[in-house]
Amino acid sequence: MLSKLTSSTWAHVSNRLTSQLALVLQLRFGHLSASAFEALLPKTQIFETRHIGPRNEEVDHMLDILGYSTLDELTQEAVPRKIQLRRALSLDEPIDEIELMERARILANKNKIWRTYMGMGYYNCYTPHPIARNIFENPGWYTPYTPYQAEISQGRLESLLNYQTMVADLTGLDVANASLLDEGTAAAEAMSLCYRQTKRKKFFMSDKLHPQTLALVETRASALGIETVITSELGNVDFSLKDIAGVLYQYPDTDGNICSFTDLSRRAREAGTLVVCASDLLALTLLKPPGELGADIAIGSSQRFGVPLGYGGPHAAFFACKEALVRMMPGRMVGITRDMDGGKAYRLALQTREQHIRRDKATSNICTAQALLANMSAMYGIYHGPKGLQEIASRVHNSTLVLAKGLRDSGNLIMNEVFFDTLKIMPKLGLDEVKNRAELKQINLRYFDNSQIGVSLDETVTEEDVNDLLWVFGAETIADEISSKKDVLDRHISHGPFARTSPFLTQKIFNSHHSETQIMRYIKSLENKDLSLVHSMIPLGSCTMKLNSATELKPCSLPGFTSIHPFAPASQTEGYKELISELESDLCEITGFDRISFQPNSGAQGEYAGLRTIKSYLEACGEGKRDVCLIPVSAHGTNPASAQMAGMKVEPIAMSKDGRVDMDQLLLKADKYANNLACLMITYPSTSGVFEETVQEVCSAIHERGGQVYLDGANMNAQVGLCRPGDFGADVSHLNLHKTFCIPHGGGGPGVGPIGVKSHLAPFLPGHPIVTPLPTESRPFGVVSSAQYGSASILPISWAYIKMMGGRSLTRATQVAILNANYMAKVLSQEYKILYTGFSGLVAHEFILDVRDFKKTAGIEAADVAKRLMDYGFHAPTMSWPVAGCLMVEPTESEDKAEMDRYCEALLRIRGEIREIEEGRMDPKVNPLKMAPHSAAAVMSSSWDRSYSRELAAFPAPFVRPETKFWPSVSRIDDVYGDKNLVCTCAPMDSYPSLDVGSDQDKSRAAAV
Amino acid sequence: MLSKLTSSTWAHVSNRLTSQLALVLQLRFGHLSASAFEALLPKTQIFETRHIGPRNEEVDHMLDILGYSTLDELTQEAVPRKIQLRRALSLDEPIDEIELMERARILANKNKIWRTYMGMGYYNCYTPHPIARNIFENPGWYTPYTPYQAEISQGRLESLLNYQTMVADLTGLDVANASLLDEGTAAAEAMSLCYRQTKRKKFFMSDKLHPQTLALVETRASALGIETVITSELGNVDFSLKDIAGVLYQYPDTDGNICSFTDLSRRAREAGTLVVCASDLLALTLLKPPGELGADIAIGSSQRFGVPLGYGGPHAAFFACKEALVRMMPGRMVGITRDMDGGKAYRLALQTREQHIRRDKATSNICTAQALLANMSAMYGIYHGPKGLQEIASRVHNSTLVLAKGLRDSGNLIMNEVFFDTLKIMPKLGLDEVKNRAELKQINLRYFDNSQIGVSLDETVTEEDVNDLLWVFGAETIADEISSKKDVLDRHISHGPFARTSPFLTQKIFNSHHSETQIMRYIKSLENKDLSLVHSMIPLGSCTMKLNSATELKPCSLPGFTSIHPFAPASQTEGYKELISELESDLCEITGFDRISFQPNSGAQGEYAGLRTIKSYLEACGEGKRDVCLIPVSAHGTNPASAQMAGMKVEPIAMSKDGRVDMDQLLLKADKYANNLACLMITYPSTSGVFEETVQEVCSAIHERGGQVYLDGANMNAQVGLCRPGDFGADVSHLNLHKTFCIPHGGGGPGVGPIGVKSHLAPFLPGHPIVTPLPTESRPFGVVSSAQYGSASILPISWAYIKMMGGRSLTRATQVAILNANYMAKVLSQEYKILYTGFSGLVAHEFILDVRDFKKTAGIEAADVAKRLMDYGFHAPTMSWPVAGCLMVEPTESEDKAEMDRYCEALLRIRGEIREIEEGRMDPKVNPLKMAPHSAAAVMSSSWDRSYSRELAAFPAPFVRPETKFWPSVSRIDDVYGDKNLVCTCAPMDSYPSLDVGSDQDKSRAAAV
Repeated sequence: MLSKLTSSTWAHVSNRLTSQLALVLQLRFGHLSASAFEALLPKTQIFETRHIGPRNEEVDHMLDILGYSTLDELTQEAVPRKIQLRRALSLDEPIDEIELMERARILANKNKIWRTYMGMGYYNCYTPHPIARNIFENPGWYTPYTPYQAEISQGRLESLLNYQTMVADLTGLDVANASLLDEGTAAAEAMSLCYRQTKRKKFFMSDKLHPQTLALVETRASALGIETVITSELGNVDFSLKDIAGVLYQYPDTDGNICSFTDLSRRAREAGTLVVCASDLLALTLLKPPGELGADIAIGSSQRFGVPLGYGGPHAAFFACKEALVRMMPGRMVGITRDMDGGKAYRLALQTREQHIRRDKATSNICTAQALLANMSAMYGIYHGPKGLQEIASRVHNSTLVLAKGLRDSGNLIMNEVFFDTLKIMPKLGLDEVKNRAELKQINLRYFDNSQIGVSLDETVTEEDVNDLLWVFGAETIADEISSKKDVLDRHISHGPFARTSPFLTQKIFNSHHSETQIMRYIKSLENKDLSLVHSMIPLGSCTMKLNSATELKPCSLPGFTSIHPFAPASQTEGYKELISELESDLCEITGFDRISFQPNSGAQGEYAGLRTIKSYLEACGEGKRDVCLIPVSAHGTNPASAQMAGMKVEPIAMSKDGRVDMDQLLLKADKYANNLACLMITYPSTSGVFEETVQEVCSAIHERGGQVYLDGANMNAQVGLCRPGDFGADVSHLNLHKTFCIPHGGGGPGVGPIGVKSHLAPFLPGHPIVTPLPTESRPFGVVSSAQYGSASILPISWAYIKMMGGRSLTRATQVAILNANYMAKVLSQEYKILYTGFSGLVAHEFILDVRDFKKTAGIEAADVAKRLMDYGFHAPTMSWPVAGCLMVEPTESEDKAEMDRYCEALLRIRGEIREIEEGRMDPKVNPLKMAPHSAAAVMSSSWDRSYSRELAAFPAPFVRPETKFWPSVSRIDDVYGDKNLVCTCAPMDSYPSLDVGSDQDKSRAAAV
Repeated sequence: MLSKLTSSTWAHVSNRLTSQLALVLQLRFGHLSASAFEALLPKTQIFETRHIGPRNEEVDHMLDILGYSTLDELTQEAVPRKIQLRRALSLDEPIDEIELMERARILANKNKIWRTYMGMGYYNCYTPHPIARNIFENPGWYTPYTPYQAEISQGRLESLLNYQTMVADLTGLDVANASLLDEGTAAAEAMSLCYRQTKRKKFFMSDKLHPQTLALVETRASALGIETVITSELGNVDFSLKDIAGVLYQYPDTDGNICSFTDLSRRAREAGTLVVCASDLLALTLLKPPGELGADIAIGSSQRFGVPLGYGGPHAAFFACKEALVRMMPGRMVGITRDMDGGKAYRLALQTREQHIRRDKATSNICTAQALLANMSAMYGIYHGPKGLQEIASRVHNSTLVLAKGLRDSGNLIMNEVFFDTLKIMPKLGLDEVKNRAELKQINLRYFDNSQIGVSLDETVTEEDVNDLLWVFGAETIADEISSKKDVLDRHISHGPFARTSPFLTQKIFNSHHSETQIMRYIKSLENKDLSLVHSMIPLGSCTMKLNSATELKPCSLPGFTSIHPFAPASQTEGYKELISELESDLCEITGFDRISFQPNSGAQGEYAGLRTIKSYLEACGEGKRDVCLIPVSAHGTNPASAQMAGMKVEPIAMSKDGRVDMDQLLLKADKYANNLACLMITYPSTSGVFEETVQEVCSAIHERGGQVYLDGANMNAQVGLCRPGDFGADVSHLNLHKTFCIPHGGGGPGVGPIGVKSHLAPFLPGHPIVTPLPTESRPFGVVSSAQYGSASILPISWAYIKMMGGRSLTRATQVAILNANYMAKVLSQEYKILYTGFSGLVAHEFILDVRDFKKTAGIEAADVAKRLMDYGFHAPTMSWPVAGCLMVEPTESEDKAEMDRYCEALLRIRGEIREIEEGRMDPKVNPLKMAPHSAAAVMSSSWDRSYSRELAAFPAPFVRPETKFWPSVSRIDDVYGDKNLVCTCAPMDSYPSLDVGSDQDKSRAAAV
């Protein structure tokens, strides 16, 4: 255990180990003798006490109320005895916050930052410091949840609408979504869309796509039974049979070439084939946009708009399309609507539709987005504005022209006719010579198999850089000399047929915030519209909104982690390697699995990857025919969608009345499909918030019938230190690092969903076409993310959390999470029905409030309760999931008793308000619940004519104080209006008469669908 | 010029220089040939465009309105021709924000971070990351102004009250102020208080005070004519003559000893002598507090409560005293009062009283505080709580006990009987041997002249550190071994007479926020009550609230700048040396002075230091009799106070009706006092906001009569690049780096006030007893700050600003500041009288709105306008200064036209509201101005019974939108109530019945005076 630490760090760490348990453990394991010195020193920086909300006395108080004397006693009751771990987690002893930063710096410094011109969708860029400081390093921006509760999320909804507008404008298409996970998955989603739209099962791709995009689309296609054709002759494809769903090309392509696809588009369109263009936002400030070349869909990465490389992620991918396809779009889209009072308001107009509507017929399991990164990119666009962006693009392009001329004039062969920032070079020097010279200058280039070399320039490139590149290729000239020649800009894009002529980003928002004062105020004004963890608890069942500590987040700003290209040579990524390996080892110990793949960059991606891994394993065992996946109907919508996408047939399992999986039916179906059973997908503890005591039997039953067990890890935070999926029968499970392991939700992404597997599945985990994350003997089923380690640059968050907690505190966190949930359930059970409890009468880490009766008794629905909670300063629990019409509450361990008491008081007061309606003392239509939330504008209006007071509306409990009140910035969203009048981009410039005041929704561009 | 850059950085910088001017300059100076390459690349990261608000087209538009065609034309009219610079500033070419960070990192890395146990008031500590991230690195906390406008400053007022409470509790005294500049000045202020209170002119000090404290108090005393006696026999002082104002001792003292002063206190008290105790907050968690030992006053530094060393500052000094002395206290004190609606509210209860009330008889010129740092320390106390603080203190104390025992047992002589964290050691090894060993281990110790050695431990000390220290002193044992001995804790403070027995920090606030979630929410909830630059413009005349950019602030978080002890050996502070030298050189070029002293850590300190420098110079010239200081009556109150403190006689000069200095009277008085004339103190441009055309003549007149000219640099931002004080006659001037040079106001400090001098004054600049900042041949007048470079760790902000702007952009910033002021004056002159303009009909960078008539016409005063502006979302301009009853507006260059237009619209609408009263359409008592500001509670109250609407109250202009409204968190402050019921500490625990709701001012501790 302790030997996992390198010896050099150990001496340091050992100085900080003081808790009694630590001493005991050290003695037990014999690595150290207890330090008498440290025993004299009170330990003052224990991270556990910062992470866990309730103080010891609060814990005792709550235990007392529940009738338990210790946390162990409570959780031994809550967790089925058969699966209890019954030993301490064997992790490193915890280190404090200061020590953590020291270790993080050491690891970051082990990554070597070379100048990297490898391109392939990843480019150096500058994150403007006001954006880094006020968004990326500001919990007001990174701790909010996905903006489902629109009234208290207007800030990031506005920002995401800016993002959509920027993408739509730059791509020349009508609409864009609020981001996808990465370029590769965006391409795969585009393929699925083509299939959904055309029902055709052939998809053609240019061989000049980035290799990871090709691999990812192929992976996805294969399981959906879609035939992919990769060709260098896209121009010659015969569409006449009308059997091709879509074509996908890249512009500029992976070699840097810019070709016209106008003719291809025309021919495709005539045949009913959709045209997808992978592109680059920066290039599009100079290039004719895909929309004008006839593309129906454009996808790509917005990374280079101000988001660091981060060894591959997270970054936002964009997805834009024509209006006609808008309701086919994957992911989330923000739209403009009005609120109850007629004011302009933003909301999620479309979201995760596939898996909700089609469930087991879905061809997209997209659940989260990359909101935080999309917002950074949108702000980058706003800060620079159209002119600034074009200047950046010109810097890049002109540098590339100079380099190309210098290389060509000195005898190198440039394979590109027209290019933006990327050259493919046949060097005059030998490949080894170029490589040697590049290494001497600490420069990374893209080396093709055919001895050609790729170079992609970016906004950070200086004259010195260009000179060094010239030298690397043996050119005996310098940038300055080349630049003074007359014809240096002759090949400039603007002189040719690809020159962009259409204006873009003419909207007011992209032309108003170019000084730092302006962008800072804009960022802060949006922040202050959004309820986040900096305001109050967000007890979202299944979404685990726990503390995202400053210390966990700080390493993510270290250049050693941010400035690494995902395909940089292994010798330059030793720090990441060490961190990822430590995190893998820790997560294996926590889960009982043998290996972890970090590639999936969302929980749903993890599900998909896990199921594909199972499928590959079965195929390798000669059991390829097994394709039935049993899924309880209570499962998250992504479960069946992922199964369907993985090529499995979904067979639903009913729930019994007590919220448990119907065991009889499960065994029946397992028997029925015994020969074809691929796997069972279950969530544990169940989505009903209970530890089902039968889980082990269920797993055995599946195994006995030849199936595998996929355990949805959404609720792993109820198990850490208490039981391990790998012990009680799961073969594979994804871990939502952005929930259980403290990566913040970012206001709607990023998420990280690595999968843990038992050793028999390990060889089949996802691989990668460029840098494989697997041992050589592996047989990967394919690729699920563009980068081999997915969103690598936020893994330090989970790593830091585990390192600072250690096994004992992680276990305590789980125990307190269970305690908190049971405490709230107990308090609320005075007035509410708690839908399900476990065998011991306890809930797990979350519980379901049944508010369905109020529909009958008072006309009140879950949504009314949710909206009314905003008036109390709180975010709603999870609504109508997993049980329609109910609320699922999960406090997490980070919330203290006082905060939970306030939340309970709010819910109890709301129950009182419902009673007023039930008993006829309050109007059934115009009451504080139906009219909730109450914006400042509504409550302050002179024309208040309601039967209840303004005070009851806005300050409904003593703890809701005017001076600290969080105001919903709009009244209740009018979803129907928004659905009827879909507007998903910013209003154009001319719709703003003078100041940015008044409601302008009437004048805004009617992008009706 | 260009050669100032080191050659290694130059190559890098040269890559970034592209603007046309840069090319021209490079050619002119011949250092570089213009780069044809860079000429091809649009420059995309020009900091000027981020710092300066108005875009080029806005500049043109405003110039047009004013009737000028270029900025040059405007400022050539505004600035007297005789003093115009007429050449470009000769500074390094600007570097961009990325390059700046690279250079800052290089400099930071040149500082060597050794383990430093030198003590003397400076200790290593940990800044909790949530405090660093959410306060120190958050513009919401560092950009607000001093909380004079209490209704929109409740957040930091509450936090400062927490600070006061913490200090009062720990020192065992009744009241504390909201911080002073550093420990030394706090001691000097205590001495002045003793003098003010007793009218006696003798002051005794223990020789065991920190050397810099002794030096500083002596410096201050000498000019005030107070006799100081430094003695090792404080216990034997004879008080019977009743001629001793006060005694000052340190506890624990600079050698680490803890002695009882109870007897001394008793004897002093009996003789009417005040007792001042310099102490240490961390020690006081274990030690009997000064108040219980009979001290009347306690002072010290709160640095080690979470504020980095920062090479000496800024940190907050504390100042606590008995109730009886509260109205004598220097600096600011926050108190609790009620608002117009009877709700609890905070406000500055006492502030800068001396110079306002006594003006030229003042014995304190304290103007600013260290609010940001005091707030960090307060949060450190809140986050750790009383138990946590005591644990930290125990760690420190126990480590020291172990070290002492180890050293003693191995033959070293420990000079201390009772100690907390500091030992004075007579080593058994030779001094050189110890020094060598220490250097080998990269450890800094305090070396006394007598071969003894001081070691001060702190919260960061580990077992390894103690072991290394043992080795350094030749002890052949280790901490672990010593710790296991039975008697190791025998000398623990808690076993002796000095053990603290009184509880402390029992208030709710210090026992509620120990998890990170809690502290983060508390910090954010306070932030959101305070209007800062993240919300809207703060056009404070003379206070220059311009952008404090993220890039300027980022270097302040680099460990290479934060973790350096002020007295670290020169070889470890090369980075600071280089930065300070560059900043000095740049500031000399900007001001026309020859040398800069960075020691003064506020503008007022700068004034004092400048005047003392003049006095010393005159004395050296045999003109010691010269002691008359002419000061216009319009001068800032600190001017006469500083002069008085510098031992000068203040002779006021009247103002003429047009806001200019009365030249006739000035010449008359200059003649009258010709033989005794020490100097003239003037502000330029004048505090009336005009460039007086006679400034050069005035300076000459003074010089001709043997006097020196002190130029108050508050308005330097109107001169940078246009004219230079050193050119037109000033001999010395202070520079408010926290205004003109972008150091943020921090919500009420820190400030930095270096002084520039002509070469004849340079030898007399402030020195330092430990590390002198001067050349050896100097004859310093004394010491003005505890650290030789004052607040060194924020100098990177000003350095960064100048490096990123360069001469051209700095000049443009000045020009735009003048343009903005003239534009606003022009727009507002439609409806308001502009009090003064310059010879050209233009104002300088600020202007005075005369609102005095409204008192007669509508009963409206400046304060009503100021409060009403809050309803419009704005901070008031400077009120009643320099002209009583008027408002002084200064937009700065960072505000864009749209923001200024909104501000003007607010003022014009307010003028309309006043007209309503004038014309009888609005009630003269109950109207939107008299009732302003309107809190959410007031506007939303059911019992609204005013003749104007709620909408008019809260949303008085179209740009004040409910969804972005900044709400004053209380109604208008009741100052009278607060004055009558002075409460300046948090309410004790038992006054909070349950939740922190309801008004508790009635129940709070009645610390009435």
